[in-house]
Amino acid sequence: MNTSSLASFDSIRAVQWRDHALHLLDQRLLPQQEAWIACTDADQVTEAIRDLVVRGAPAIGIAAAWGVVLAASQHQGEALQQALARLRAARPTAVNLMWALDRMQALIAGGASVEALTREAQLIQDQDLAGNRHMGELGAALIEPGSGVMTHCNTGSLATSGFGTALGVVRAGVAAGRISQVYAGETRPWLQGARLTMWELVRDGIPAKLIADSAASHLMKSGAVQWVIVGADRIAANGDTANKIGTYQLAIAARHHGVKFMVVAPSSTVDMATASGDDIDIELRDSAELLGVSGKRTVIEGAEAWNPVFDVAPASLIDAIVTEKGVILNPSVEAMRKVFG
Amino acid sequence: MNTSSLASFDSIRAVQWRDHALHLLDQRLLPQQEAWIACTDADQVTEAIRDLVVRGAPAIGIAAAWGVVLAASQHQGEALQQALARLRAARPTAVNLMWALDRMQALIAGGASVEALTREAQLIQDQDLAGNRHMGELGAALIEPGSGVMTHCNTGSLATSGFGTALGVVRAGVAAGRISQVYAGETRPWLQGARLTMWELVRDGIPAKLIADSAASHLMKSGAVQWVIVGADRIAANGDTANKIGTYQLAIAARHHGVKFMVVAPSSTVDMATASGDDIDIELRDSAELLGVSGKRTVIEGAEAWNPVFDVAPASLIDAIVTEKGVILNPSVEAMRKVFG
Repeated sequence: MNTSSLASFDSIRAVQWRDHALHLLDQRLLPQQEAWIACTDADQVTEAIRDLVVRGAPAIGIAAAWGVVLAASQHQGEALQQALARLRAARPTAVNLMWALDRMQALIAGGASVEALTREAQLIQDQDLAGNRHMGELGAALIEPGSGVMTHCNTGSLATSGFGTALGVVRAGVAAGRISQVYAGETRPWLQGARLTMWELVRDGIPAKLIADSAASHLMKSGAVQWVIVGADRIAANGDTANKIGTYQLAIAARHHGVKFMVVAPSSTVDMATASGDDIDIELRDSAELLGVSGKRTVIEGAEAWNPVFDVAPASLIDAIVTEKGVILNPSVEAMRKVFG
Repeated sequence: MNTSSLASFDSIRAVQWRDHALHLLDQRLLPQQEAWIACTDADQVTEAIRDLVVRGAPAIGIAAAWGVVLAASQHQGEALQQALARLRAARPTAVNLMWALDRMQALIAGGASVEALTREAQLIQDQDLAGNRHMGELGAALIEPGSGVMTHCNTGSLATSGFGTALGVVRAGVAAGRISQVYAGETRPWLQGARLTMWELVRDGIPAKLIADSAASHLMKSGAVQWVIVGADRIAANGDTANKIGTYQLAIAARHHGVKFMVVAPSSTVDMATASGDDIDIELRDSAELLGVSGKRTVIEGAEAWNPVFDVAPASLIDAIVTEKGVILNPSVEAMRKVFG
């Protein structure tokens, strides 16, 4: 596979700003439908984040930045602050949302114009894409040629400005001949792996197989996988990583089998103000997400469910954290502080 | 909870012989519909086993025994042997199928009448129920009062003649005040936990919550679970246990958290002729089971999947194997041989 075919790995842009509106590819409907939602005010962006039209920590941050542009175009003073507070409360676990809002609000506090805010949102988006390409190279360099890898949830173009974080490493690794086979966990309850990651991988012609989340250990035992590569919603100061539910279980299984475990995320995902994973707020969502599939009830009426949608992989089970600022092997407080000070 | 309410724990009979036909509760349609299929010849039983109308290792064995009664009523000689061979090939992993067929075929070889075969099939069914009640007591005695437990797949009345294996221990443990909360993994791809186990638990009024399979480790870390209790499709001579995909991953996670791991199965599940888990044939089923949910396509066209439906939990990760012949702690070749010769 040569560089020109790598270019085709990067055709999806799920978050687009044009004509004074934020256009979002509705990820709830993929892969059956490619439908777009246009947000023309900040509350529509808040709703899109909360309802998972847009998901993936980096994409949430970028969408929120554009939400600030919309809010600042239409509101001032208290009304503006309230719109920003609603954006901030849309999802609790992904720190990129808070990071992007902090960055935009600092400009507002300094009296920035809507034009300046627009330039900043575009910069956040462009920096994310450049960072993803750089992380792709850094992460792929850790992988032995001919490896099989497993990923979880969706961390690709759909979850970012483009190219992806963990899936960016997969793309770069395939292009470099380091990865020969990809396995994607389907990622219940929302099936991001089945619906979104497989959509990206099949479009790109990358050799990929879908597996049930609970088949990961059986797969690892077969020797087919050398690395598990995942994204992150928040990385604490000691390297503990909050990510999609199931990530922690994969980290345990990987260590049990001697499979390496890599976290790939932009530095905006790192939260040095959070000491460890114990301090990360884990989002619990509605039981209904487990009690049915694709809108069809699958469980007896009256049943209860427990639906945490993130968990924490401790730093002790992580072999490498890859950010655009560099690679941290065997993450620890000290190793993290060197890079993120 | 007293003994009279325990009696209500045992109302489901999914495999019933009456009026010269085998009546099977169609488990593919639960919990939405309670529909019955009547099999009046052996090939209909074969089809019902293969297509998962009836599932669960003990229930498969019982259904096969009744299939032999039907075959012997209608065929002789070569035609009978062919019907039995088709029954034997219906599912490869569950050894109870082979065990029940061996037991019935020994009678046929001895010239038994259809009446004698009918009595034998009824005996297999009755012994299974009695064994389940006994295993329930043995397994529950291992559990500290007030414990939380997790189970996987469905091992209840639906998977057996009644009461259940692992779910029989859950029922007995709840009745004895030893179990205060049950968590059921949904068990992709067929959702037996979501559809069937929750159906049984809610009907019985047992405090239960459904979780995504990949949330098990996050749950264990919270301290809410003291035992994982599962069934088995085949137990090798060294204690290695083949069971529903995901069982191995749960065993790894349990050991990581110091949670105990119990396998509950009738002695007919033990296959002393199979030295270890490496020698167990793991059934791979159609990718379509992962590429859609409830008959609705969820994954992009052209996608591939890997769909092993069982895996093997090694004896080293199992704390107790409970059979109607007794409890084997820390299973090993020696400990197994003492009970199963």
